[in-house]
Amino acid sequence: MSDLKAMLQDLVIANRILAHEEVVDAYGHISMRHPDRPDRFFLSGSRSPELVTLDDIIEYDLDCNPIDQRGRAMYTERPIHGGIYRARPDVNSVVHNHAYELIPFTVSKSVKLRPLLHTSASIGAEIPVWDIRDKFGDTNMLVTTLDQGHDLARTLGKNRVSLMRGHGCAVAGSSVYDAVSTSVYLKVNAKLQTEALHFGELTYLSPGEIAQMTGMNTQGPTSRAWEYWSRRCGAKP
Amino acid sequence: MSDLKAMLQDLVIANRILAHEEVVDAYGHISMRHPDRPDRFFLSGSRSPELVTLDDIIEYDLDCNPIDQRGRAMYTERPIHGGIYRARPDVNSVVHNHAYELIPFTVSKSVKLRPLLHTSASIGAEIPVWDIRDKFGDTNMLVTTLDQGHDLARTLGKNRVSLMRGHGCAVAGSSVYDAVSTSVYLKVNAKLQTEALHFGELTYLSPGEIAQMTGMNTQGPTSRAWEYWSRRCGAKP
Amino acid sequence: MSDLKAMLQDLVIANRILAHEEVVDAYGHISMRHPDRPDRFFLSGSRSPELVTLDDIIEYDLDCNPIDQRGRAMYTERPIHGGIYRARPDVNSVVHNHAYELIPFTVSKSVKLRPLLHTSASIGAEIPVWDIRDKFGDTNMLVTTLDQGHDLARTLGKNRVSLMRGHGCAVAGSSVYDAVSTSVYLKVNAKLQTEALHFGELTYLSPGEIAQMTGMNTQGPTSRAWEYWSRRCGAKP
Amino acid sequence: MSDLKAMLQDLVIANRILAHEEVVDAYGHISMRHPDRPDRFFLSGSRSPELVTLDDIIEYDLDCNPIDQRGRAMYTERPIHGGIYRARPDVNSVVHNHAYELIPFTVSKSVKLRPLLHTSASIGAEIPVWDIRDKFGDTNMLVTTLDQGHDLARTLGKNRVSLMRGHGCAVAGSSVYDAVSTSVYLKVNAKLQTEALHFGELTYLSPGEIAQMTGMNTQGPTSRAWEYWSRRCGAKP
Repeated sequence: MSDLKAMLQDLVIANRILAHEEVVDAYGHISMRHPDRPDRFFLSGSRSPELVTLDDIIEYDLDCNPIDQRGRAMYTERPIHGGIYRARPDVNSVVHNHAYELIPFTVSKSVKLRPLLHTSASIGAEIPVWDIRDKFGDTNMLVTTLDQGHDLARTLGKNRVSLMRGHGCAVAGSSVYDAVSTSVYLKVNAKLQTEALHFGELTYLSPGEIAQMTGMNTQGPTSRAWEYWSRRCGAKP
Repeated sequence: MSDLKAMLQDLVIANRILAHEEVVDAYGHISMRHPDRPDRFFLSGSRSPELVTLDDIIEYDLDCNPIDQRGRAMYTERPIHGGIYRARPDVNSVVHNHAYELIPFTVSKSVKLRPLLHTSASIGAEIPVWDIRDKFGDTNMLVTTLDQGHDLARTLGKNRVSLMRGHGCAVAGSSVYDAVSTSVYLKVNAKLQTEALHFGELTYLSPGEIAQMTGMNTQGPTSRAWEYWSRRCGAKP
Repeated sequence: MSDLKAMLQDLVIANRILAHEEVVDAYGHISMRHPDRPDRFFLSGSRSPELVTLDDIIEYDLDCNPIDQRGRAMYTERPIHGGIYRARPDVNSVVHNHAYELIPFTVSKSVKLRPLLHTSASIGAEIPVWDIRDKFGDTNMLVTTLDQGHDLARTLGKNRVSLMRGHGCAVAGSSVYDAVSTSVYLKVNAKLQTEALHFGELTYLSPGEIAQMTGMNTQGPTSRAWEYWSRRCGAKP
Repeated sequence: MSDLKAMLQDLVIANRILAHEEVVDAYGHISMRHPDRPDRFFLSGSRSPELVTLDDIIEYDLDCNPIDQRGRAMYTERPIHGGIYRARPDVNSVVHNHAYELIPFTVSKSVKLRPLLHTSASIGAEIPVWDIRDKFGDTNMLVTTLDQGHDLARTLGKNRVSLMRGHGCAVAGSSVYDAVSTSVYLKVNAKLQTEALHFGELTYLSPGEIAQMTGMNTQGPTSRAWEYWSRRCGAKP
């Protein structure tokens, strides 16, 4: 049996890190698949990530029903998480965020996000863009139904990241550490690529380089970056 | 009768939020219509929003005369508020700000601000630009007369936001929460659209999407964003 | 006789404000003409503005000789100040800074800095660029001789600001409050104009608007902006 | 004999400064050649620069073998340091960083980084770009072998800085103070040049100006900038 409590504490820290590194603002969330029951996942109740505590964490089944809600408000967009966990057994953590740097790439009809910095290799060579309007027409843009969540998961496919038009992204990681690191460097890569658009022809990471680097930053709770981020956000002394 | 004191405390918090989120700097202000007397509104005395306290709040009639000034200095631009409250019975809160991200849109003769991010839907599909020079010629650019305030309100029309050339904007909300949220995401949208100008053809929010999302973020003092913003600026523990 | 001590304390606060508002970094300085002896001025010894205290302030004559050095290290670029005070009796405070936003305007052969935001009107309609290389050839770029200081003052002429190629700027104010405010909004205007370069044809402030607004933000130590800036940087409780 | 302990304490402060000034994030490092044994250098164990303490500092020979590891984890990229110290007897400190502002210049096939601000003169007139792929094909992009370290040092040649494609840079300084200052203003120059790309034809620093300014900011631990940076990051009271 896994040390579930320690893992949930790291999920709380992950919320704080994403807020402190400005991956999320008032909105956005990170979940973790239950380490012992792959048909369950953990996600905070409806609260801004910077403020999440252990008491806010709710357990869900893959249809996004709470196991023990205890009156806590729930994120309406939890089908992003349920949809991806059902489609992708290799995924153990999902981040949904609206990092500002990403948005131009979600609304552009011509420019594709693509890794050019070594620490961003984990975002993957192919990053699709899901547009809720394609299948569901005019909506309030939120992923509130299982049908929408499954559709997003289909667009994500086998990739690590899917952008969401006019909205943000979904990041699929092998662990909480992986999903956090990928989210941070997704944002960094978007910022750098936006600037580099003005620099003429560019050299991107090659497929071979991407393959060798993926997951490299994210060995777990003892990694250098995790120590740094968790201390910066005040989650560790 | 409304719980006026709690509402005024939230008006003070709104001042702090706008400062902390860098919507305002030394200048800019937010007002609230009196909940029980629609011919009155509340606005701080002349002070930077970050420093406003309950003692600074002055009550005004719609011609911007103070009810009980008690020697406090007044913002010269209060006709922005009086003008909009008189013209728009549906408006209960007005923000005037100079958020830097907006300014290029106020001086451009060709680029129009337009929502592309779902959380920015509340800024509305149509955002006019008011130029004080059109009717009043060379001025010190400040909206200091009722005539100027009414002219600005006419340009605003039925919209949620009017830009002001070389100056900033006026935001008209259904509540303090709505006006704050719209002001924050107006700034965010301006920043994103400025970057996205270099990304070729873009997909903007559709009228149907804007309609479904407007006001969605702003259910009031218990909303997720309000909790987040009020804690970030230190106004709540 | 003026209240010199209070004025010197505000000069110290001005140093802190310029650092906190990121007008200066490790380098840059602000001086004040002696209120009772126009042939003297006050300037900190060689120290980063964020760290300046009352003990660091040195009195100089207009040839930049210290009146009572007491072993304190001196800024080598004090001729910027002496040069301008000698040429411009109307100037009572000078700021020299390298605000990053300005630098592109100092090295461009075609783009001119020009006010487009109302709070930036005080930077003036005409902003010349001084290039030390024109008269002095290859140097270490620093204004270290009286001859260089006088040459810079000649380029400044009757204007409020002169840019310095590859280096920064000199700002000439009627008071410490005016020089600080102009320096802050010079930086803001540069940032906004850099972004607005991509927005097609622009509307700038008219000469009549500039005339009506100049000096408007800077009524002195009781102004709204001074209270805001001095509290933000921690110089006042 | 040098005051080694004081120098090592400054090496720790240098780590903090580079983090606070956002030259490094979770990754990046700075080393110092042993002042009495030129065949040795000091470098922190594997830790983010913001968190480095005196206990983390490990002594290495020029083949990057630790003298007294005591179980501490090591940076895998220490061959960047060993490679440069072996090739360049004049270099006493090396910084490796991924400052975001630099990355577009490392991946562009046409735009060259070049100093345009006087405080950035120390980055040098010529800044080569090393691409690990040229000699080593697809890798994980990290400089983990002595062969790679020597190859990077060959590209650096007699210059002060070499960029690294899709990765960051190596900075070679005459002292820790020089390497820190050059790293800070390398980042600043990259940011400014990126913006100035849109400003038409530019005036860069001339070779004569670069020669006169190189090393000017970095007289040692008593310099104005060092006092400023070390207090800003909290390393000194």
